[in-house]
Amino acid sequence: MKHLSRRTFSSRMALGAAALWAGPHLSIKGATPRQGQGRSLGVALVGLGSYSTYQLAPALQQTKHCHLAGIVTGTPAKAERWQAEYGIGKDHVYSYESFDAIANDPDIDIVYVVLPNSMHAEFCIRAARAGKHVICEKPMAVSVAECDAIINACREAGVKLSVGYRLQSEPYTQEIKRLVREKTFGDVRFVSADAGYISRGNPEQWRLDRERSGGGALMNMGVYSIQSCIYSCGKNPIGVSAQEFSTRPEYFRDTDETITAQFTFPGGVVGQMMTSHNANANRLYGSCEAGWFELQPANNYGPLRGNTSKGPIEFPHESQQKLQMDDFARHILEGSPNRAPGEMGRRDMVIVEAIYRSIGDGGRQIAIDLPEGYGIVKE
Amino acid sequence: MKHLSRRTFSSRMALGAAALWAGPHLSIKGATPRQGQGRSLGVALVGLGSYSTYQLAPALQQTKHCHLAGIVTGTPAKAERWQAEYGIGKDHVYSYESFDAIANDPDIDIVYVVLPNSMHAEFCIRAARAGKHVICEKPMAVSVAECDAIINACREAGVKLSVGYRLQSEPYTQEIKRLVREKTFGDVRFVSADAGYISRGNPEQWRLDRERSGGGALMNMGVYSIQSCIYSCGKNPIGVSAQEFSTRPEYFRDTDETITAQFTFPGGVVGQMMTSHNANANRLYGSCEAGWFELQPANNYGPLRGNTSKGPIEFPHESQQKLQMDDFARHILEGSPNRAPGEMGRRDMVIVEAIYRSIGDGGRQIAIDLPEGYGIVKE
Repeated sequence: MKHLSRRTFSSRMALGAAALWAGPHLSIKGATPRQGQGRSLGVALVGLGSYSTYQLAPALQQTKHCHLAGIVTGTPAKAERWQAEYGIGKDHVYSYESFDAIANDPDIDIVYVVLPNSMHAEFCIRAARAGKHVICEKPMAVSVAECDAIINACREAGVKLSVGYRLQSEPYTQEIKRLVREKTFGDVRFVSADAGYISRGNPEQWRLDRERSGGGALMNMGVYSIQSCIYSCGKNPIGVSAQEFSTRPEYFRDTDETITAQFTFPGGVVGQMMTSHNANANRLYGSCEAGWFELQPANNYGPLRGNTSKGPIEFPHESQQKLQMDDFARHILEGSPNRAPGEMGRRDMVIVEAIYRSIGDGGRQIAIDLPEGYGIVKE
Repeated sequence: MKHLSRRTFSSRMALGAAALWAGPHLSIKGATPRQGQGRSLGVALVGLGSYSTYQLAPALQQTKHCHLAGIVTGTPAKAERWQAEYGIGKDHVYSYESFDAIANDPDIDIVYVVLPNSMHAEFCIRAARAGKHVICEKPMAVSVAECDAIINACREAGVKLSVGYRLQSEPYTQEIKRLVREKTFGDVRFVSADAGYISRGNPEQWRLDRERSGGGALMNMGVYSIQSCIYSCGKNPIGVSAQEFSTRPEYFRDTDETITAQFTFPGGVVGQMMTSHNANANRLYGSCEAGWFELQPANNYGPLRGNTSKGPIEFPHESQQKLQMDDFARHILEGSPNRAPGEMGRRDMVIVEAIYRSIGDGGRQIAIDLPEGYGIVKE
């Protein structure tokens, strides 16, 4: 049973993360970064894979309220290249082993953890203990228990926490949230969201290795579909049923390939989602009493495309990662809303676990018991 | 259990239809209508509700190969209005009781049954026995057993049979079938189709009365989603799971309100569909190895709108019903393909019954055992 063993694995990881609490690192309480308006916060990227290389570092050249100030990598050659390209001093370069010394680096305010999913909890907790604000790339972790550990560590350390949900800062997505909030088309009755791509690369990549990813398409792309369904109706689901499809088991040996799920929301909203590592899809759709809205694509790095029953949605394109990191910096500096707080990432992991549970139970409807509005940011 | 009682009802109806075989009406074998190219076939509409009034009768003013030649109605005042509007002689006006005398009406070649679903089987069988070619409005009947009875009656009488699937004759839909057949975007990997509208009218309407409709959204709109999924990949499903959602039970007292279903197809294609009497949706989408196609709307009376990863699909708008009835007339007159044969309607009812069965079984995956290509028309 793929999912039972996944859950077993997740539990083990959660224990691993929790064990860190009592580990050798001292929690540096009160050592929060300097506050103040107008200042630009220093960001250290942990993990210099393709997302850091091609998205985050370039975005940090455009941000107004934060900038690239440090790197954490296990590969010395990468460190050299990045130092040269971005003028990063040797004092701001860390390995995974030396990482905790970042506590003493006053130029680093924010640590952005861009590692494989199973390493999020460990490094987010270590970052919090080092007194740094934390951005945890999505999915937040590989279990709800790990999300709890991250949230608690940040609370204890008095640092801010957000999840790398770039779309929450993105204007098309903001517009969908506004249309829902203001009931432009009346009440929402049906939402639908798909997020997937065809994985053809190295079958040894970490995303296809459950030990490191915690799961397949659902963990990687499915969280977009979950997010889309939620902000397309402004509510958290109260129930879910789900199905898993395996058509290339020789390639997807260890992780879910394609998953469909159906949601019930309060007030009679019905939702459906698909996520896949074996099919391209990228859409959200909301059907309302008196109209509809759609983004397609809805989840890529942009430009997105939007349409409604009243006409197209159009915004100039900007780097989503720039908007996201500036939003978080402004949250720290100015107290503006945290658009993707840890609770949001935790909520999505509650839903992910319910989806896996339904699949394990042959598609049975699973109740989702979240406090009303939990993880939803009101703006 | 709503679905158990629906099945019980369907079985009873099927027996009712089958009982007609041995009934008092003589089968007029060999009394097939006149054949010959260039001739326009006479069509009698059975049931003068809104679909006949606002779609079929106007379309029959535009058809080239057939024309409105008779009517069958239970309402004398309607008969008078139609006679005046369309110049229909009194000899071509029938009541449901006098209907069988249509056998002796040489001006009627085709009988189009546009009655509530539970009456399709009876009147299609009576039409076949009267020696007339038959168009049966969708859904074909309220059970597979009834579909069998209709198909057998037409075969025995030597008359042609088609189902009122107007989209099978419609150019956007034909284009989707071509893109799939010619693998323009490579193999299809995922298909998705939604078909629904918000029912707000009289709760006593026949569509919301299971005795007359045989079911709710799935029977009425769901067959479009089923059709869309099938022609978007060119294959019949081999398995299905499904869920039912009820949010306005006070209005939808007797029939399904919203249903979602997930399909598996041969060769690893995954499909999902939604159908509803409580939400607007109207789309088909196919995700392929190297591109995608979409119709939205996909199922209304047109104009449809189509898009693909290579650009838009665009055709001039024509009455779908005109195209459909002319196609069937040409099939009779010239032997061109029957684009919506009885087997296609029966196949969809096999899938409808599997969906209801999965819902009754808590969403369990149900195998669908259809001969390969059954009901799929190769052109």
